[in-house]
Amino acid sequence: MVRRVCIVGGGMSKWGVREASLWDLVQEAGKECFEDVPGLKPKDVDGLIFANATAGRRGFQINSAPICAERLGIKPKSICARVDVLCASGSTGILLAYGLIASGMADIIMVVGAEKCYTPQKWEVFYSELATGDHDWDSVHGLGLPPPFFAMVAKEHMKHYGTTKEQLAWVSVINYNYGAENPKAQFQKKLTLEEALNAPEVVPPLTLYDCCPITDGAAAVILACEEKAKDLTDRPLVYIRGGAQVSLHACSANWPGEHFADWPHLKVAAQRAYEIAKVGPEDIDVAQTHDCFSISQIIEVEELGFCKKGEGGPFIESGQTKIGGKIPINTDGGLLSVGHPFGGTGIRQAIEIMKQLQGRARFQVEGAEIGLTHNLSGLNFEHTIVIYGREPVK
Amino acid sequence: MVRRVCIVGGGMSKWGVREASLWDLVQEAGKECFEDVPGLKPKDVDGLIFANATAGRRGFQINSAPICAERLGIKPKSICARVDVLCASGSTGILLAYGLIASGMADIIMVVGAEKCYTPQKWEVFYSELATGDHDWDSVHGLGLPPPFFAMVAKEHMKHYGTTKEQLAWVSVINYNYGAENPKAQFQKKLTLEEALNAPEVVPPLTLYDCCPITDGAAAVILACEEKAKDLTDRPLVYIRGGAQVSLHACSANWPGEHFADWPHLKVAAQRAYEIAKVGPEDIDVAQTHDCFSISQIIEVEELGFCKKGEGGPFIESGQTKIGGKIPINTDGGLLSVGHPFGGTGIRQAIEIMKQLQGRARFQVEGAEIGLTHNLSGLNFEHTIVIYGREPVK
Repeated sequence: MVRRVCIVGGGMSKWGVREASLWDLVQEAGKECFEDVPGLKPKDVDGLIFANATAGRRGFQINSAPICAERLGIKPKSICARVDVLCASGSTGILLAYGLIASGMADIIMVVGAEKCYTPQKWEVFYSELATGDHDWDSVHGLGLPPPFFAMVAKEHMKHYGTTKEQLAWVSVINYNYGAENPKAQFQKKLTLEEALNAPEVVPPLTLYDCCPITDGAAAVILACEEKAKDLTDRPLVYIRGGAQVSLHACSANWPGEHFADWPHLKVAAQRAYEIAKVGPEDIDVAQTHDCFSISQIIEVEELGFCKKGEGGPFIESGQTKIGGKIPINTDGGLLSVGHPFGGTGIRQAIEIMKQLQGRARFQVEGAEIGLTHNLSGLNFEHTIVIYGREPVK
Repeated sequence: MVRRVCIVGGGMSKWGVREASLWDLVQEAGKECFEDVPGLKPKDVDGLIFANATAGRRGFQINSAPICAERLGIKPKSICARVDVLCASGSTGILLAYGLIASGMADIIMVVGAEKCYTPQKWEVFYSELATGDHDWDSVHGLGLPPPFFAMVAKEHMKHYGTTKEQLAWVSVINYNYGAENPKAQFQKKLTLEEALNAPEVVPPLTLYDCCPITDGAAAVILACEEKAKDLTDRPLVYIRGGAQVSLHACSANWPGEHFADWPHLKVAAQRAYEIAKVGPEDIDVAQTHDCFSISQIIEVEELGFCKKGEGGPFIESGQTKIGGKIPINTDGGLLSVGHPFGGTGIRQAIEIMKQLQGRARFQVEGAEIGLTHNLSGLNFEHTIVIYGREPVK
C-alpha cells in the first residue's frame, strides 16, 4: 500500500543578513524543528534531504548532505542527499522525501533548506547569480540576474493586461504587513503604498520593494509516514495530498508561453497537482506563492486558478489575498518580507501552511483545511507545487 | 499499492578525456539511452533527475536539471531535480526516482548522471576537489583530495589484515581486463600484474593503477512502473528490489569505525538493503562495487558480506571476482578502467547490472538473477546500495 505522508513539525533560523555560517544557520533551524516535535530524537530520523543551491561556490562545499546530517546529530539510514533546484530546492526536497516515505523506503525524513548568501567572497555571490540562468544561452549574453528578467515579465503583464505600478506595490504592502509581525522575517516593517511607490528603482518598472532581498537563512521540517506521525504529535495531522514539478524549457528563447507574462508551465503544474490531490483551486483555503518579485505573485494567482488570466493585479489590489479575502496568501510575509535563502524558501512555505492547517499560524485562516505551496526556480525554468490537507486523499 | 519499479534501458557517452561540453556528453548518453528503448519518446518521459556534483563550480551552472531536460527534449511534469551526493549522485538519483514511481507520483523517469572534469579553468578542478571533503574540519587542514585519504585506508588495511601490494594490484588487473573490451571505457588496456606493481606511486602505497582516473562522461537510464515497463520493452523485466543510503559521519575525526579500514556505514547500508530486498549476500549473482581505489573494492567485498572481514585481499587475488568466481564484480571495468565522472558512475553501474540481468552483458554471468550496485561518496561519507532482480520482492 502507498503510505500516507504527514508533515509533523518545523523550525527556522532567523532570516536576514547573518554573521553566521551555513552550518550555524542549519543548526539554529534544526534545533527549533526538534523542539517543535518534542517526542523525536535525532536517532529516530532515518533520512535527511538537504536543499541547497550555492554552497559549492560560496562555501567550497559540495556533497553537503552528510555534513548537514552530522551537524544535526542525525545518522541517515535510508537517504542522505542534497538537492538543488535553486529557488525551488526546498519543495523539491519535500516531493522527493514524500516518494521515499510513501513507498516504504523511509519512515521519518528531515528536509532542511538553507543558504548562506552574504559571504566574504563577494565575487562568488555574483558568479552564483550568473550560474542561475542557462549559462550557455542566456547568462553569457547578460540574461543571468533575476531582476532584469522579471522586469521584462512585469512590462509584458502591464502591456497585455493593463497592470499598474500601484497593483505591483500592493503585493509588497500586503506581504510586508504580514511579515511585520514575523520575528524570523528579514524585514519586520509595515510598508505603506506611498513608500513602495516612491522607492528607488532597481530595474524599471520594479522598485526596491518589488524585489525580494538576498538572505541568509535555514528552515527544517519533519515528514513521517502516518503511523509514525500519530506517535510523534498530538496536533492535528497534516497530510501531503500531492504535488508536481514541471519544466517546459530552460533557455529563454524557448519560453513556452505566448509572452513572458504567460506561464503555461505553472498552469500545467497546477493542473497536475490538483488532479493528484483531488482538489481544485476553489478548495484551497490558504496558499504560499513564490513572490520573488511582486509581479510573480500577480501572475501566480492567475495561473493557479484563483482568478482569471490577466486579473491578478485587481485581484490583489482589492484585498483578496488578505485574511478574510478569497484566498489568503503568504500570510507569514512571503519572500518579499521574510527573505529568500534559496533552499530555505520551500521549507518556510511548508512550515506556514502546516501551521495554518494545524490552527497555530500567526495570522490564522479560520478552519483552513487545504493549503498549497508554489515555488518557482531560476529564471522561471520550473514550477513546483505541493498540496497539503487535514484529510488524506481518498 | 506500492508500485513495482523497473529499469528498462540505458546508454552512455564515451568516457575519458573529452573535447565536449557537459551538455554534449549528456546528449550523447541520452541518445543511446533512447535508442535502447525504441518505443519511448522524450514526450513520454514525465520526470528527469540529473545527478551532477560539480557544474556549479566547473560550468557556472547551478539548477542544471531543467537545462538537462531541455537538451534531451524532455518536458518533465512530475519531477525535474538535480541531486548531488558527489561520487554517489547517480545511484542516489535512482533511489529518489524509485520512490516517486513506486508511490505513484511519476510513471517514467530518466535519471541522467554526468560530469565535465577537464575544463579550461584548471583551478576550478582543484577547488572542486577541495570541496569534496568536510571543508571546515578536513579540507582546510589538507585532508581534501581523495588519494591521500585512501592511502591511509590502504595502510590501515595492510596493518590490520596483512593485505599486500600484490593484492591491491590484482584488483586493478582484473578490472582493467574487463574494461579492455569496453569501448566506452577511458582505458581499454590489458594490464599485467608487473605493470601495476611497477607503476609510479601516487600516494604510497597507492600507485597509478590503484587510483581511478579523472573523467568526462555521462550515462542515462530509464526507470518505469511495471505496467509501463511491460509496454516499453520485450526484454526480461529487471526490478529494483530495494536500496539504502547510509551516512554515519562527515568529518574524518568522527569516523564511525575502529580504524579507517573498518567501514560500519557500508555494513549498515548492506544490511538494510538486503532486508528491504529480501535477499542476502549469498543471493547476489553479480555486483558493481565502487573501486575508486583498489583498496576500496577489497574492503567492499568484506563489508558487503561476500567474504569475511579482512579477507578481501586473498578473496580477490584468488579470482573470486572474475567470471566463474564466487561473485563477479565490475564486469564492465569499474571506476578503475571505465573512469569516474562523479554523477555518471552510479548510472553506469546500474546499466551494467541491468544488462547482466537481461542476459546481454559483454562478460555475461550466466543465469544472473540478482545484482547489486554499491556507490560511495566523498571521503567515504556515505554508502549507497541498490539491489536489482529478475523477480520483484514478494
